Amino acid sequence: MKIVVVGSVAFDNVETPFGKVENVIGGSATFFSVAASFFAPVAVVAVVGEDFPKAELAFLRSRGIDTAGIEVAEGRTFRWTGRYHEDMNLRDTLDLQLNVFAEFQPKLPESYRAAEICFLSNIHPSLQQSVLRQLDRPELVGADTMTHWIQDTRGDLEALLRHVEVLTVNDEEARMLSGERNIVAAARKILTMGPKSLLIKRGEYGVLHFSPDSVFAVPAFPLEQVFDPTGAGDAFAGGFVGALAKCGDFSPPSVRRAIVYGSVMASFVVEDFSLKRLRKLSSEDVEHRYRQFVALTEF
Amino acid sequence: MKIVVVGSVAFDNVETPFGKVENVIGGSATFFSVAASFFAPVAVVAVVGEDFPKAELAFLRSRGIDTAGIEVAEGRTFRWTGRYHEDMNLRDTLDLQLNVFAEFQPKLPESYRAAEICFLSNIHPSLQQSVLRQLDRPELVGADTMTHWIQDTRGDLEALLRHVEVLTVNDEEARMLSGERNIVAAARKILTMGPKSLLIKRGEYGVLHFSPDSVFAVPAFPLEQVFDPTGAGDAFAGGFVGALAKCGDFSPPSVRRAIVYGSVMASFVVEDFSLKRLRKLSSEDVEHRYRQFVALTEF
Repeated sequence: MKIVVVGSVAFDNVETPFGKVENVIGGSATFFSVAASFFAPVAVVAVVGEDFPKAELAFLRSRGIDTAGIEVAEGRTFRWTGRYHEDMNLRDTLDLQLNVFAEFQPKLPESYRAAEICFLSNIHPSLQQSVLRQLDRPELVGADTMTHWIQDTRGDLEALLRHVEVLTVNDEEARMLSGERNIVAAARKILTMGPKSLLIKRGEYGVLHFSPDSVFAVPAFPLEQVFDPTGAGDAFAGGFVGALAKCGDFSPPSVRRAIVYGSVMASFVVEDFSLKRLRKLSSEDVEHRYRQFVALTEF
Repeated sequence: MKIVVVGSVAFDNVETPFGKVENVIGGSATFFSVAASFFAPVAVVAVVGEDFPKAELAFLRSRGIDTAGIEVAEGRTFRWTGRYHEDMNLRDTLDLQLNVFAEFQPKLPESYRAAEICFLSNIHPSLQQSVLRQLDRPELVGADTMTHWIQDTRGDLEALLRHVEVLTVNDEEARMLSGERNIVAAARKILTMGPKSLLIKRGEYGVLHFSPDSVFAVPAFPLEQVFDPTGAGDAFAGGFVGALAKCGDFSPPSVRRAIVYGSVMASFVVEDFSLKRLRKLSSEDVEHRYRQFVALTEF
């Protein structure tokens, strides 16, 4: 199955307790698509400025990623600057420059329209809707969002959610979207808003998956060195959706295995800054860590 | 196998976002022993004041718990007053009255000395040592501690740790004891201080178990209503140690199943204040929730 993802392709400046990098490649669609490319064909919808390195687009293509939907617009690429606390579950956004993203109107290449799976990364819900409308008839629609959209564009977001099968959020977003403090109550409420299932990403504590008749929990992989959490949630989504696309069915056991593959990809991303760990990752590494997840959790 | 536990038997005043209770039964040895009693014979070493209700001691005995080692001393029973935040992972101790605990010198009845398993709940490490010295030759020694002892009685605690097989701590205690921020690095360091294995209790995020050659992670049971987290860590330890005593071997698969049983008992305790949930719990309830843990985690 083919995946279409819309989201940001960006430059990041990131500071963590372990170091500082500037002008590195980031963005939700970037992390998602590179993670997904280990499993299935993925096509990106995004916009970059003229300053975006051709070598990076070539790197994406070298991973089999379709970049025909990445528009190169006049101006500068989207740029995010963030700093993580000593407790890396917390971060501050120090600067955000939308640049070419401010005027972005996603236009899907003809070749994208038949994709069976669509993932709408964290961008304005009306842009997510616009991408969805340009697809013929996707079998699975996943979406991510953040507190900014929940607070400021709730109407658009709620309209989108009626067309979403799988939503990914973190604890704070789940609470804000539902108005419920308890995370189980929050999940139950969100499942009445459209999504058939909900993934709650809890960083170093793992992931919870809620569907109307089941709850599934996977711990995060305990790592001795976490360099940079940036992109972990997007790589999780990429691994999850990619693994579903690869196996081609959305049965509960397939969904559970896909969630573990998502956790595998997230566990690699945080081991280095930006895409550094994913650039040298092999499919054997992925399978090895999947087996480590089995060993970590089986009883 | 028989378990001896030393710790507090207390009165609690507890306030959570869901209510407030006063003069309810609490204490680490109480929660531990009631949880453990679902699996194996357990004998308590503690002290209470003359104000402690005989009916509560009778309740413990009705669960098969040996109370011969609970000394009734002149004065008032240990009393803890605490308030949980809206985020119930956080709590403040508002008042602490040691009362009869201030002069407590544990004395083990002769009938306790042959116990195969000993659990040293969270009390002064020199009292923990004193209990340990009164046992003939326990096959398994577990211990709990807290930041207060790590900061103020580190020497005593380090001496104790050399005789402890399994230590239980939370994230903060693991970091303070090891001096390491990363939780995996912290665990590795603590495993050089004596304990053969380490259990890190993370509240609503579950438990991590570290041994020199293995890591095991269990999520907490996702509950729609958490009334009162008090005693969850002690009930976890009681379920864990109780399940090990019941199966009678300490092999890695037995340890993993015992950790799940510990998580089962913790998940019940928090469903109501004090011992209320455990008082009406059946062994069938315990086995049912164990199967729910299997369903929650299997992939």
